[in-house]
Amino acid sequence: MTKTACELCIQPGGEVLYRDDNYRIVLVDDERYPGFCRVIWNAHAREMTDLSSAERAILTAAVWQVEEAVREVMKPDKVNVASLGNVTPHVHWHVIPRYEDDAHFPNPIWGEVKRTPASNDLARRRALLPRLREAIHDRFEASLL
Amino acid sequence: MTKTACELCIQPGGEVLYRDDNYRIVLVDDERYPGFCRVIWNAHAREMTDLSSAERAILTAAVWQVEEAVREVMKPDKVNVASLGNVTPHVHWHVIPRYEDDAHFPNPIWGEVKRTPASNDLARRRALLPRLREAIHDRFEASLL
Repeated sequence: MTKTACELCIQPGGEVLYRDDNYRIVLVDDERYPGFCRVIWNAHAREMTDLSSAERAILTAAVWQVEEAVREVMKPDKVNVASLGNVTPHVHWHVIPRYEDDAHFPNPIWGEVKRTPASNDLARRRALLPRLREAIHDRFEASLL
Repeated sequence: MTKTACELCIQPGGEVLYRDDNYRIVLVDDERYPGFCRVIWNAHAREMTDLSSAERAILTAAVWQVEEAVREVMKPDKVNVASLGNVTPHVHWHVIPRYEDDAHFPNPIWGEVKRTPASNDLARRRALLPRLREAIHDRFEASLL
């Protein structure tokens, strides 16, 4: 493989909702999945087990806080969380609100498309994004007080 | 939705490599992915954030131990970990050793097939399974001593 610069070392990876010394939380721009967030470890690390257990605890605590905010605001039927990194091997977590009528359900969002989601459902979910930004801001900034 | 019995409440979900009061570790029977393990919470819970933080810590510690054993024995190019549960909404983690020449790489294993893996590569990986069973046994049973 050609050694190229790591995308998540040089770019934020989405709209940054929160950032501290360890990680950042970004909102992913995927029109089919409003509320899809990522929690990205700032330092370059390939696998979760390349982090220390203290670092893993910090990162996963953030993932569960994001999952809680996503559940509270987006009211999904299911949440999917995953750390894959095949394309960008820099530790990052996907936190994805899933709905029974979304584009891929019950498949993972990387699987076969099952349907075209209704545009009014997507619009309703997109309308929740200001509340999601606020919920994440409140949860994470509050912990700094 | 029709209310049906949860598959992971009534079946082990694979070849059980370890089981305690909280969770079990199973080897998944997927011929394209030798070494694919799942860590399944025994009690029925839908989302990670339905578990207490102490329970989440127990479960994720097991996931990282499995990831370490998988890395040590299977020497994958990347590990994928995910908690999805769209089909079976009972908390379980996929820990999947990935190789650049596997069936879907760099796609997630739920994505589009990219190639037919060479049968000798698969055979070589399958031949590591006795060592993986042993590595998981050693890591988890040792913690009971």
